[in-house]
Amino acid sequence: MQIEKQIIDEYNHQLAGKHQRNFEHLAADIADIDNVLKKLMAFNVAIPSWALGTGGTRFGRFSGGGEPRSLEEKIADVGVINALNRSSNSISLHIPWDIPDNAASIKSLASELGLHFDAVNSNTFQDQPDQKHSYKFGSLHHVDKEVRKQAIQHNIEVIKYGVQLNSKALSVWLADGSNFPGQLNFRGAFQNTLESLEEIYNELPDDWKIWIEYKPFEPNFYSTTIGDWGQSYLLSSKLGSKAATLVDLGHHLPNTNIEQIVSLLLMEGKLAGFHFNDSKYGDDDLTVGSISPYQLFLIFNELVEGMDARGMTHATDIGWMIDASHNVKDPIEDLLQSVQAIKIAYAQALIIDKQALVNAQQNNDVAIAQEILQQAYRTDVRPLVAEASKRSGGSIDPISLFRKINVREQLIKERGLKTVATGL
Amino acid sequence: MQIEKQIIDEYNHQLAGKHQRNFEHLAADIADIDNVLKKLMAFNVAIPSWALGTGGTRFGRFSGGGEPRSLEEKIADVGVINALNRSSNSISLHIPWDIPDNAASIKSLASELGLHFDAVNSNTFQDQPDQKHSYKFGSLHHVDKEVRKQAIQHNIEVIKYGVQLNSKALSVWLADGSNFPGQLNFRGAFQNTLESLEEIYNELPDDWKIWIEYKPFEPNFYSTTIGDWGQSYLLSSKLGSKAATLVDLGHHLPNTNIEQIVSLLLMEGKLAGFHFNDSKYGDDDLTVGSISPYQLFLIFNELVEGMDARGMTHATDIGWMIDASHNVKDPIEDLLQSVQAIKIAYAQALIIDKQALVNAQQNNDVAIAQEILQQAYRTDVRPLVAEASKRSGGSIDPISLFRKINVREQLIKERGLKTVATGL
Amino acid sequence: MQIEKQIIDEYNHQLAGKHQRNFEHLAADIADIDNVLKKLMAFNVAIPSWALGTGGTRFGRFSGGGEPRSLEEKIADVGVINALNRSSNSISLHIPWDIPDNAASIKSLASELGLHFDAVNSNTFQDQPDQKHSYKFGSLHHVDKEVRKQAIQHNIEVIKYGVQLNSKALSVWLADGSNFPGQLNFRGAFQNTLESLEEIYNELPDDWKIWIEYKPFEPNFYSTTIGDWGQSYLLSSKLGSKAATLVDLGHHLPNTNIEQIVSLLLMEGKLAGFHFNDSKYGDDDLTVGSISPYQLFLIFNELVEGMDARGMTHATDIGWMIDASHNVKDPIEDLLQSVQAIKIAYAQALIIDKQALVNAQQNNDVAIAQEILQQAYRTDVRPLVAEASKRSGGSIDPISLFRKINVREQLIKERGLKTVATGL
Amino acid sequence: MQIEKQIIDEYNHQLAGKHQRNFEHLAADIADIDNVLKKLMAFNVAIPSWALGTGGTRFGRFSGGGEPRSLEEKIADVGVINALNRSSNSISLHIPWDIPDNAASIKSLASELGLHFDAVNSNTFQDQPDQKHSYKFGSLHHVDKEVRKQAIQHNIEVIKYGVQLNSKALSVWLADGSNFPGQLNFRGAFQNTLESLEEIYNELPDDWKIWIEYKPFEPNFYSTTIGDWGQSYLLSSKLGSKAATLVDLGHHLPNTNIEQIVSLLLMEGKLAGFHFNDSKYGDDDLTVGSISPYQLFLIFNELVEGMDARGMTHATDIGWMIDASHNVKDPIEDLLQSVQAIKIAYAQALIIDKQALVNAQQNNDVAIAQEILQQAYRTDVRPLVAEASKRSGGSIDPISLFRKINVREQLIKERGLKTVATGL
Repeated sequence: MQIEKQIIDEYNHQLAGKHQRNFEHLAADIADIDNVLKKLMAFNVAIPSWALGTGGTRFGRFSGGGEPRSLEEKIADVGVINALNRSSNSISLHIPWDIPDNAASIKSLASELGLHFDAVNSNTFQDQPDQKHSYKFGSLHHVDKEVRKQAIQHNIEVIKYGVQLNSKALSVWLADGSNFPGQLNFRGAFQNTLESLEEIYNELPDDWKIWIEYKPFEPNFYSTTIGDWGQSYLLSSKLGSKAATLVDLGHHLPNTNIEQIVSLLLMEGKLAGFHFNDSKYGDDDLTVGSISPYQLFLIFNELVEGMDARGMTHATDIGWMIDASHNVKDPIEDLLQSVQAIKIAYAQALIIDKQALVNAQQNNDVAIAQEILQQAYRTDVRPLVAEASKRSGGSIDPISLFRKINVREQLIKERGLKTVATGL
Repeated sequence: MQIEKQIIDEYNHQLAGKHQRNFEHLAADIADIDNVLKKLMAFNVAIPSWALGTGGTRFGRFSGGGEPRSLEEKIADVGVINALNRSSNSISLHIPWDIPDNAASIKSLASELGLHFDAVNSNTFQDQPDQKHSYKFGSLHHVDKEVRKQAIQHNIEVIKYGVQLNSKALSVWLADGSNFPGQLNFRGAFQNTLESLEEIYNELPDDWKIWIEYKPFEPNFYSTTIGDWGQSYLLSSKLGSKAATLVDLGHHLPNTNIEQIVSLLLMEGKLAGFHFNDSKYGDDDLTVGSISPYQLFLIFNELVEGMDARGMTHATDIGWMIDASHNVKDPIEDLLQSVQAIKIAYAQALIIDKQALVNAQQNNDVAIAQEILQQAYRTDVRPLVAEASKRSGGSIDPISLFRKINVREQLIKERGLKTVATGL
Repeated sequence: MQIEKQIIDEYNHQLAGKHQRNFEHLAADIADIDNVLKKLMAFNVAIPSWALGTGGTRFGRFSGGGEPRSLEEKIADVGVINALNRSSNSISLHIPWDIPDNAASIKSLASELGLHFDAVNSNTFQDQPDQKHSYKFGSLHHVDKEVRKQAIQHNIEVIKYGVQLNSKALSVWLADGSNFPGQLNFRGAFQNTLESLEEIYNELPDDWKIWIEYKPFEPNFYSTTIGDWGQSYLLSSKLGSKAATLVDLGHHLPNTNIEQIVSLLLMEGKLAGFHFNDSKYGDDDLTVGSISPYQLFLIFNELVEGMDARGMTHATDIGWMIDASHNVKDPIEDLLQSVQAIKIAYAQALIIDKQALVNAQQNNDVAIAQEILQQAYRTDVRPLVAEASKRSGGSIDPISLFRKINVREQLIKERGLKTVATGL
Repeated sequence: MQIEKQIIDEYNHQLAGKHQRNFEHLAADIADIDNVLKKLMAFNVAIPSWALGTGGTRFGRFSGGGEPRSLEEKIADVGVINALNRSSNSISLHIPWDIPDNAASIKSLASELGLHFDAVNSNTFQDQPDQKHSYKFGSLHHVDKEVRKQAIQHNIEVIKYGVQLNSKALSVWLADGSNFPGQLNFRGAFQNTLESLEEIYNELPDDWKIWIEYKPFEPNFYSTTIGDWGQSYLLSSKLGSKAATLVDLGHHLPNTNIEQIVSLLLMEGKLAGFHFNDSKYGDDDLTVGSISPYQLFLIFNELVEGMDARGMTHATDIGWMIDASHNVKDPIEDLLQSVQAIKIAYAQALIIDKQALVNAQQNNDVAIAQEILQQAYRTDVRPLVAEASKRSGGSIDPISLFRKINVREQLIKERGLKTVATGL
């Protein structure tokens, strides 16, 4: 299904009075509002193809209804999201879950919905039915050269699919690690990973990047071979300028200061981008901003400040993507909530009084530095986000409209109640 | 020094135009605004006497200037805070750091400033110069009955000081624990603690309470004898109805769901109150709301809902106190920021659409339940807090006024640059 | 397959020379060696039926070969384990994964192998194909009374299966919790859980117990309704004397002092028993003793000391069970390693010089208290464990024998390479 | 005081019978025992000068008696330790706590006791009475160039003291960080730190090293400017080949896999050395091996394997030092326990069957890899450690002898009961 522009406009019209009042009230206090709106309007977050179905845990999965049964239906779902919020104009595919049978027709379908293809993702953490070697003991880090070769070939194949779809980056997450002391030689595992990545790196087209994700644990519970930002940085600095580090917000040990990591990676020119989600305990893959919204704001504070410092005028210089698991919510609603939370954090970061903050920092005026950040964070910026969406042709209130026009009910009618999307 | 009412009024007058506009804009969307304001106006948070000086860590302390040199000056500082925010009308003393030489004159001084005395705090985690037995290996849990007796007597003495000042509660935090496996018999330590507390409990006046704090680690680094809420609950349930559990927000293991603990203690009638602060790693004692403001809001959500459910109409049924350490900020500014953050969280919790939330919970409509909480949290409630302060005779913007009228500079002039308050 | 006694004896004979030398060397230093051996010989750890197949994570499962295809084959596998180590004489069934079609024949099969049935486990964390109501939003805590009724009925049914098999306990682990703030009313969830448990409690036969497990997170990532020992204790104390708290070693927040919890539960008469495993990050379900063997020893120190203090002469007064997931190892080998690690920890705890420890504690002689524990822990007690096994008819070196006689190869031949056991 | 060789020999003689029996029993099973003993005998761990007094926390300090009152007495204490265990032949000084008035006489005193001087440590985390600028807001990272200059000069001065004493390394731990979001610009802080370190680096003599320590939190509780190994590595790789990363075992977030970090730093030639201690929660500074002895063993496994792989034949290629705080134990006893625990872990790592482990790793035989590590770890290697000590002229049982000859009582007699050593 597609959402007609007219429906969006009509609902915006209903909400216009209140929205206008709120927006004007807020606008009166913001110095450079046009610039803020321009940046918000230019901002997009990619939707991963696997996030459109219900997620699960090792203990079970409780499917919802109307899940997409094909790549085409996944693209349609992203089309729905983007029609509503005008901030989700790309989709990130996962191979082999989403191998396009016909790249041309897939591209054309996406294009009709105003979508393009973000980074492609390889998968060497599961065995596929027809696979020669098992990834039970890892892939790019494997002690057996034949297994590494197979995993390298898979990544090269993923690049080829990506080229067909005009993707510009390969996103690599490795589950490689160990469950028990003694299982791995850490140096050997690291060196094998590096050599495997070098072979993949050499196959990257000129205008491509490789994004290297890190994660401290799960599905391995003693060590992960790319376990923290330092290990990812070490690899990406050895690989070269096309390689950089991807930050998934849920991939950190308890109490990690993620915003500091983001700041330093950006400083070093090694911040590839983000997998956004939220978490309380581990890689919980919850809706962005649902647990620690202030941390999200602090990350955007570093991004806005650091990108300015590097003269990165386009938000597109960094890869933005959601990577969450929707175990108890409608996936589309959850994604709408996530993008909304990201845009709120971005808007809050954009209205920080930067000059005052610099001054406070120069004077070690800690109380005022805190006041400045809190002044931005405590501001209700939702009218800004709504206005940016409206001006881009999206809805003032995407989630409410999604419910109002019964999108899910229609999808269930179209697709059935017991469909299961590919993915976790 | 004291802050004249006239100064506050003048500054409020200067801010009135903008404040009024913001307040009216916000008020238009809040159903029962009078009730919300009434509750905010009735709300007070006690200031601990030890928080008025600069704090430190084991690695050093960097004093600021103008710290209070006596109990009288500490009371004066609380007077300043309360004059500014009208939400800090009591002080919590720590014995032996703040033994009143003359209770009558101290009470009268406090009373002139509109202050009274909250819970009194005992100290058996340090040795005093004239002390017979050392607390090196604990106090109420000690293997040696003589040491326990000394610590019991100290607590009884603290009650006596409290009675003179019209306090109504004894707040007990024990550092008792162990640094190494084998050091303690856990059961023995627990039983000794229970028996010691029983002796203290028996000395409580009829209208008094005993608040039992828990903490997982520091200053002992293997075990703490009252280490978690379960252990505190076990003690307080064995002691009787005058005993309850005190929650210090910084006294939890990583990732603890504190709001759930608060909810259950309240349900059991065993929530004594709070020591407010914020933390990222351990008992960091940072300004309230400076790290995890959403968590603070979620705690107040449980409090508002749970107190309503128990018919607790007075916020004073629970003990509210700040317990922070001001290592790099002016203590008074830090306390003003903390009280401000608490009132913001309380105001946000008060405007939650409770009926809608109950409905969403009944329908397991998780996305909407989240929307309802976020709707309240994302609202900029600062005009509510400011209005409540103004109506109570306080400042619309306490921190800004504190700076504007150079309070600290005057205190330094009065007291000197190199004073050091008693405390940590 | 079954392992002939003769094979065990022959291998023991081969190892006898070295073993005897080691045993005698060790025995010379142990005061009451007969008592220690007697206790080790009497000690048994139950094997859960679901642990006999390869485990997995939400990212995938890499099956091994020869997994049991039926309850009968699971019992046979436990028979193999027990034949080798003579410390695993019971099996803990999980309903509905292991519903016995014919209880009498199952009991007789087990009996032939010297096995009996430990606690039965209910499952309300997954939906079964024919189930009327979904557990997507919980079971015993559910807002909908009909769902609670269904879950209560399931538990009562599990008791009935258990009665047929001469089990004496129902073990309840609830996944009930929430993924997002606002999703649950914590008090409501707790009260519903309590009422549901009361209905189940009332159906317990006179000589039965109910074991209530706690877990802080996973599969829910914001709250769990029975999240820590305090919450489980609160429930079990309200239920009555047949209810107690089950400790799974992997179900704690980072840095929790588990041995202290064990000590206090035992003191209160509320320690039901254990689910043994090991972990570095969360509920990693790794082989017992593979990550934190000293912690395991400290737990057994509390058990030995606390059981003595309560006059619990039989280790069978407490429920001992392994609950691990074997993702990269042969499940039987992994279970043999786990039982071995448990027995080593138990043996070390048994040889602690208790009187010296009590004296050191009385004198706050911390260094010596540590020395006493380390003296026991650093002792190589493997000859004791081997001797106990040998005297009971088991192998001196179970894992080595398991490999030597190619058990897994035979199981693969019997059962096939691509079997998948029921379970996670 | 000094311990006569004769006293040690006499006590060894008393213990000889039992020791010889144990040693021979163990030796029979160890392939290359001479090599193992040679390595153990060559192994030494430096004692930090500040560890000889009683430590404390921010809540208090409970001094013991007989603490050293001067640098000379600290050296004497290290002499006692080394006489007993023959594994502590160097001392690491902390400036300004231990400024030598007369380097020549200090060197000669140390030399008489068989001691030399390990790395010198700078201190920019406290203000000294005569200091021009305060380190309240940091030192090498400070926004104010004058403060940075002062801190740089201090470090250069520390190098000069070190040169006089034949030290060969400067050990730098910075407390620099922030307590609140907004306080710092992370990039600015990092760049300032780098530039400051470059100035210090340029002053290093040719044969010197600079060791850069990292720590995630405390005494700052929001960010630390050198917070993790990645940040330290980034700095040391930019500085050059004389710079490397120092690992303090207590300076990690919960659940960190430290042994993997050690392995990778060693691989990159960037492992400076260790500050040994143990911890359960944070930088608890407990006795080495008292909480997580298996982790200590796993670290030594990486060291032995990684040093072999790099052809590092001398343990002295890496800096070994204890950094603990002795709050409840006699400092000398605590240090003896720590060195003992380190040597046990080293001995266990030396007897690992490396070829078998390599084979198991090549075959992904996870269960056997674990068995191989556990085989070494479960071996009681204390007779090896005792024999190495004896052959070097030390005691078979240092702690027991320390008690037997009443060292502390004599120190109290010499120095008094209420002395307080400089340090934390």
